[in-house]
Formats: sequence, structure tokens, C-alpha cells
Amino acid sequence: MKFKVKNIKLSAGWAYIAILEAKDADRLGLHPIDRIRLSNGRKSVIAILDVSSNKSLVKEGEIGIFSELSEVLGSQTKHLKISHVPKPASLEYIKKKMEGFQLSKSELFEIVRDITLRRITDVELTYFVSSCAINMLTDEEVVWLTDAMVKNGEQLDFGNGMIVDKHCIGGIPGNRTTMLIVPIITANGLIMPKTSSRSVTSPAGTADTMEVLCNISIPTSKLKRIAKKVGGFIVWGGAVNLAPADDHIITIEHPLSIDSEGQMLASVIAKKASVGSKNLLIDIPYGPEAKCTTHNAAKKLGEKFLWLGEKFGMNTHVAITDGSQPIGNGIGPALEAIDVMRVLENDPLAPLDLKAKVCYLAGLILEMVGKAQEGQGFELARDTIESGKALEKMNQILDAQGRKVKHFSKIKLGKFHHTVRAKHKGELKQVSVHAISEIAKAAGAPKNKGAGIYLYKHLKDEVKLGEKLFTIYAESRGKLGFALQEMKRHKVIEY
Amino acid sequence: MKFKVKNIKLSAGWAYIAILEAKDADRLGLHPIDRIRLSNGRKSVIAILDVSSNKSLVKEGEIGIFSELSEVLGSQTKHLKISHVPKPASLEYIKKKMEGFQLSKSELFEIVRDITLRRITDVELTYFVSSCAINMLTDEEVVWLTDAMVKNGEQLDFGNGMIVDKHCIGGIPGNRTTMLIVPIITANGLIMPKTSSRSVTSPAGTADTMEVLCNISIPTSKLKRIAKKVGGFIVWGGAVNLAPADDHIITIEHPLSIDSEGQMLASVIAKKASVGSKNLLIDIPYGPEAKCTTHNAAKKLGEKFLWLGEKFGMNTHVAITDGSQPIGNGIGPALEAIDVMRVLENDPLAPLDLKAKVCYLAGLILEMVGKAQEGQGFELARDTIESGKALEKMNQILDAQGRKVKHFSKIKLGKFHHTVRAKHKGELKQVSVHAISEIAKAAGAPKNKGAGIYLYKHLKDEVKLGEKLFTIYAESRGKLGFALQEMKRHKVIEY
Repeated sequence: MKFKVKNIKLSAGWAYIAILEAKDADRLGLHPIDRIRLSNGRKSVIAILDVSSNKSLVKEGEIGIFSELSEVLGSQTKHLKISHVPKPASLEYIKKKMEGFQLSKSELFEIVRDITLRRITDVELTYFVSSCAINMLTDEEVVWLTDAMVKNGEQLDFGNGMIVDKHCIGGIPGNRTTMLIVPIITANGLIMPKTSSRSVTSPAGTADTMEVLCNISIPTSKLKRIAKKVGGFIVWGGAVNLAPADDHIITIEHPLSIDSEGQMLASVIAKKASVGSKNLLIDIPYGPEAKCTTHNAAKKLGEKFLWLGEKFGMNTHVAITDGSQPIGNGIGPALEAIDVMRVLENDPLAPLDLKAKVCYLAGLILEMVGKAQEGQGFELARDTIESGKALEKMNQILDAQGRKVKHFSKIKLGKFHHTVRAKHKGELKQVSVHAISEIAKAAGAPKNKGAGIYLYKHLKDEVKLGEKLFTIYAESRGKLGFALQEMKRHKVIEY
Repeated sequence: MKFKVKNIKLSAGWAYIAILEAKDADRLGLHPIDRIRLSNGRKSVIAILDVSSNKSLVKEGEIGIFSELSEVLGSQTKHLKISHVPKPASLEYIKKKMEGFQLSKSELFEIVRDITLRRITDVELTYFVSSCAINMLTDEEVVWLTDAMVKNGEQLDFGNGMIVDKHCIGGIPGNRTTMLIVPIITANGLIMPKTSSRSVTSPAGTADTMEVLCNISIPTSKLKRIAKKVGGFIVWGGAVNLAPADDHIITIEHPLSIDSEGQMLASVIAKKASVGSKNLLIDIPYGPEAKCTTHNAAKKLGEKFLWLGEKFGMNTHVAITDGSQPIGNGIGPALEAIDVMRVLENDPLAPLDLKAKVCYLAGLILEMVGKAQEGQGFELARDTIESGKALEKMNQILDAQGRKVKHFSKIKLGKFHHTVRAKHKGELKQVSVHAISEIAKAAGAPKNKGAGIYLYKHLKDEVKLGEKLFTIYAESRGKLGFALQEMKRHKVIEY
């Protein structure tokens, strides 16, 4: 049957969705969430059917297609042939996982392929994500899921140079090390093609923060050129079609801030394998409010990363770091971008804790790949910053990706702010990682770039009566209100 | 902030969804899935935000609202004021359940209230449904969930008469007893206000089948009048706002055919409590391919129903019945409606197994409420059919609800059909409940009313070479093809 295309200029989210008028659907024996093949003669794609009885939207003889379908079929498509196809078998596999059974390699491959091809609805994918979170993935499933994610996406080849990557499991606000490690490492002649994610559960991800300074959505075709020219980049993984199924899974995890171990391992290693990383450093912070609450938990998770990294042929190292308080002064994309640039510019307001952690991690990488002798990596990393070489490299990277601000002093913070001051003197005993995160998110981070928190004090600092403890920034009065409400629910700082 | 309303003549599914143009959203510090309060001066409602950068859909200064919102706010609404409200706490409770903790009474109440008020997205609700299915509900949670479902919906009062209800847990194709029990019971002077569901996992639910004969979407305001006039009705529960959260949960369960015990118990008892039932018979079929595979499992589930029914003040009885084969001859809405009418009309082609089961169940109810002496219920029920009193009552009910067909002989079956004949003689040893269900569903049942299977033979029947075993009906050639493909995957009948 041939139908006249009506472009519904609206995104349906992820899945390919098409709408038929109820009478047409009845005539074809088709129903909502049936799968149909759409073909315009040149291209053919499987979509998910919706049915509407509202004639002002789709009339008899018409097929409404949402913008994702318009894009893949070409906006000039005038007519589409429709045929009915059975429901994907991956739905059965998702139910199998839900019922507690282990999935096979080919079953996981089919699920990931159908996610990638946008043949699965958000509701169906949510069942998969929740089943993997609740019933957990076995070791074998983690390997197969990783493999399926890599194979159902683009794989980039940056040639024979020494390719290096790093990843932090997150959970500690302000921990913006990647944006410093990439310039240090590339300034030392290595290749670091870094794809980063946006925040899932935190006030800022590396991608959110880098976006304050430059363009982060860069087509795959340009990445090789940038890497060749300046040695590395920091781009948003979602724009480069590496393991795209993973990006959609992360979107589905977002509303409930789900972060389950198996998905996380697969997500990280799949992204690294897709850019051909041969050397990988994993940063696992631990602390009372970190993702790993004990050194032992961090060690166990590290072992999982070592195991999975090695499975995919990577020289993997794990650094277990201090996650007892936020890192740096700023929390939130704009504030963290300013921290990063201050370190690179050797600015007097540069957060020294961030600089020290970066030199430690970058030093480990330099030692891992033989650029520094054992025990000398830290110094080499610090020299790379203090000599201005890292700044020079960062400027090259920002220019190559498409710079947005001339200098960090031009970065805009939220217009609405509120400063909290000490009510008595004392020594800072505790800064709640959880409270700081929640307040910064309530203030609008990461989506509102200028929202977040600036910390004037860190653990063990002396505090005088009336001294500033922190400032909350927000882009709207409403969000500042939310942040202040959130603040009342928590013990933020003890002194 | 005031925005100009643009009615998007499209359903967003269940939740209340509104769309802002990206620049407006940015200005207000709002993001997708943020919750916003919309107010037109008279009405105010909380909706879920989507953001579009496609100006041909929603321009700056406009707010797009999907049809569910247009309906509740009134289609004449020209402008809406927007304010930001925090995410509902129920999202935290859903995550708590996902993490394996028991929810409190007030937490479950809030989740159900937010589902009812359409403040939760499909993805968020899917997390709740899957968490309840995988982590299971505790006994206390089942009681609280039931209570929350009742309180977040309408409660109907049918006065002081003897109010009776029945429920079958389903799973056996063709088992269309309700449509016979209601006329028998009401013909005996009792009140039976029956709300039924559409099929979740089977080829036909009672609502789907009743819909072949008459209107089933009847506003609550009319139900009392109908019950008063004719003693009872069989309507679709989804149209009467009884425990509406349950209907939406069932929609979300549909894509993966999920049917978990706790949800099911709460769903059934909530519907019965909402119509004020004081006497309840539960039919639990068991058999190798039924929901309960052993008599013991059926007994255990029955005890749960007895326990929950009593908690809500109902005189509850359980009948454990034979679920080893389909009941009746027809499977699928039209075919099952014909079976029902043939029994009532004492037609020579009436399925005797269905009639016998109905007399047994109706008899139990008549005994439960003292309308028949112990051991005499079956006979009274049979007499009610054979005397034509049940048919007369059914005709009153069909007329009261709005009759669609004059006589069952006018019911249309699918135009495309395929008959399977015996390849050798023998005695029928097995009819697969599962295979029959899957084939009928592949043929298009329940949505295609005329799709399904007509069985000419039942267990232990003699079969001659070349004799008809069954006929598959479908409304499109494609669906008949799917049914035939499905047939090849199963051992349907052994003889």
C-alpha cells in the first residue's frame, strides 16, 4: 500500500515512529506498536506504528512521519510503501532478561542492533535497562554487550601512534580532570581522542563543561583531521556515532539517575574500543558519598575494569583516588570550565587540589606508556602545565573544535546568586558531595551552563565568622529558589 | 510567564505533555522532562515539558499542548501561564522500589496519584512496573497499592442490593464466562456491575468480546441507571475511571506481556472494591500451559485472593477449574461472542464445555449469596439459561448499553481464512493453549475483532482422516500469513 507522506515536524524521541489514520490502520489490520517497513524506492526502514483518529493531523491515505524518519528517508520523500513486519525477537530477549535468565551473545547483539536501528520504543528499552539494573549482567553478558555496542557503531582508526584514553567513573562534583589531562598528554606527543559523555547524574559532565569553551558536536569525518593536526580532542560521544545504543540507554537512565555496574562497564569500554585506544587509565574516586564508598569497593570495581579492558586488548591501569569532597572550586559547567582554564593559565585563583590530581593522573599515563620514568610522571605533567605548553595545546584544541569564548574571563555565570557565610569560626570538617551535587542540579546544572556552586573553602581550611563559604549561581529566580529549598534539606558543610 | 496556546492535535499517550520552543525554555531555565504548572485562570494542571527547536511546530512565545492537555484545559484556552515545579517525589520512590526496598503506604499512594494525574512519563512508569515485577510486591505493598488505586479513582455506589462480582485470572483462550454469568445472576435478582478489561496477553478479553455486541465505553453517570433498570452491565473498566492508574499500568505491561502477581491482585481487587462488590468469586484455571501450572499453585494464588478480598471486606470464594485446553469453540472477539450467544439461545452449535463451566461458576455464586441451596446452584443456573431467562436478560443489557448487532448471525468474521484438516484418524490427545493463543494473536486478535480460531474438536474427541480440526480467521492477508508462520512454530494439536 502506498501512502502520501505528511512530515510531522516534531521529534518522537529516539525511535522511528510513523502514524496512520485509524481507518487505514484498520483496513491493513495494523495496530499501535506494530512494526512496519517503509520504503520510498531508494531507502527502506523499519518503523513503529502509531494510530491516530484525529483527521486534522493525518488524513486517510496519508502517513505521518516524525522528524527522525523524515531525516533518514530524506525530507523530499513524497510517498511511502508500507508493509507489515513481525515484532522484533529482541522483545522476547528483553523479557527473558527481565525473568532473570542470562542472555546469549547473539540475543544481546540483536537487542543492541534494534536499539541502534531505532526499532524499539522507549518503554521497551526501559524494560531492558531496568532488567539489567535489577537482575544485573553476568560477566559474559557484560563482554557481549560491550562487543555488540562497538560493532553496532562506527569504529575510528587513528593510525599507529600511541593512543591513550582515560575515564573517571564520576560521582565527585568538580572533578574535571579530562580537560587538563588531554592537553598535557597531547603536549607530550601522544594521541588522545577523547569522547566524553554529558552528565547522567551529576551537575556537569566533561562534554557539558567543554561545551562552554568550544563546539563539542563534531562529525566523525573531521575527527581524524583534528587528531592529526593537534594530537587530540574532547568531543561529545553522542555526536560521533560511537556505540550509539549506549547514548540512548543513558538517555533512558536519566529520569531516575540509574547507573548500574554492568551497563557502566560496557558503556565505558565500548567507547574506548571504538576509538582504538590501546592504553587506558581508569580513575575511581572513593569516599563516604562517592559511588564507591570504601577503598575495597573501588578496588573491586577497578578489577572489573582491568578484566574488561584486557578482554578488549587495552593496557589498562586503575587509579583509586580521594573522593571525600568536591574537587576544584567550581561545580557546574561554566564554573568548572573556569577552574580548568585557571589551572592551565597558572592563575593565582587556580584550584590546587584539581591541579595536583591532574598531575598525578597524567603522570601515571606518561609512565604507563614510557614517556616518563617510574616516579617521574607527576613532575613531567606539572612542568607541562607550568611551562605553558598545556595551555598552548588547549588553545589549539579549542580552535580546532571551534572556539566559543576568547578567554575564561568572558564566561557568563548565572545572574541570580546567593552566598552563604560562616555563622561562627571553625575548621572545615565536612563538605557533602551529595548535597553540593543536589543543590547545583536544583540550581539548573548541567543544562543551565552558568548554574552551579563556587566553593571558597575546602576540607581542613580555617573559617572565620562571616567569611564566604560558597555561592550558588542560577539562571532564573525559580531555579535559585529550588536550590535554596534543596540546601535546607541537607547538611552541606560542617565546621 | 504567559504563552499563546498552540493545540497539537496529537495524543502524547497518557502523560500530560507540553512543548516550548528551545529559546523560551532556555530563558526560563527549563528542560525536557521538567515539570511545569499550566494555568488558564480557571484550571491549573501539572504537565511534563518537552522542548523543540523546530519553529514550524512551536514558535517563540507559544506553548504546544497535546490533545490530553487540550481536553483537560478546555480547547478554547488561548493563553497559559507557566511556572516551574519540582520533580515529583514519586520518582525517588520508584527508584527505591527498583533498589529492592519496600515502599510505605504513603509512598505508594503518591506514585499512584501521580500516575492518575498524568504527571509521570511512560519511561518513569515502566521503571515502576518492571521493579514491581522483578523485585515483587510484599503483601503489605499489595494492600497499599490496591487501596491507593481505589482512592485515586471514582467509587460507585449501587445501593443496598446484593452486589456480586466475579473474576477469572485469564490465560485460557475462549474462556468467556462473564458474558454468561452476568445475565444468569441478574436474572436471579442480584446486582452485577461488571467492569472488564481488554486483553493484556490473550487473544480476547471480556471487554473486547462484549464490544462486538454492544457499546462498552459507558460514562459512569449512566451506569447506575443501567444497573437499576436491568440489574447489571458488562462495560470496559478503562472508560469508567475506576482505578484509572491500573489501566495505564496495563498499557505499559502490554508490549512485553507482563503479568506479575502483586500488580494483578491489586488490579483485580481495586476494580471490585471501586464498584462496592460485597461478594466475589475468583476463577483460577490450572493446566500445563495455564498461568497456574499445578493445582497447588492455583490453590496458593487462590489463598492470596481470599486474603486480599477479605482485607477489602468482600465475601470471597475461589473456584479452581480445568485449564488444560481452550474453552468453547471460538477464540478471538467475534468468534467468542458467537459462542456466548449460541449458549444463551440454546443453539445446537453451542459449546457445551463453556455452558457447563458457566453453570458451575454461576451456581457457586447463587449458593454463596443464598439464592440456591448448597448443591443446587448448578441446576438453577442451567434452568436460567434453558428457560430463556438469561437470553432475555442479555438482550436487556445489550439494549441498555447500546446494541451493535441484531443477532449473532450478523457478526462478521475475518475474510481471510485457512482450515487445517486431520492428516490421519485418531483421538485428540492435546490442544495447546499457548499455540492457539499465539496463532490467534498473530492473526490479529483481539484488535481485529473478526480474527481468531474456530476449533471443531476438543480433547478426547474422535478425529477422522480429512476432518476439519480448526479454521484460522484474519482480516488481512498479511495477518493470515503471520498466523500460518506462527502455526509452523508450534505443535498445535496432537491426535
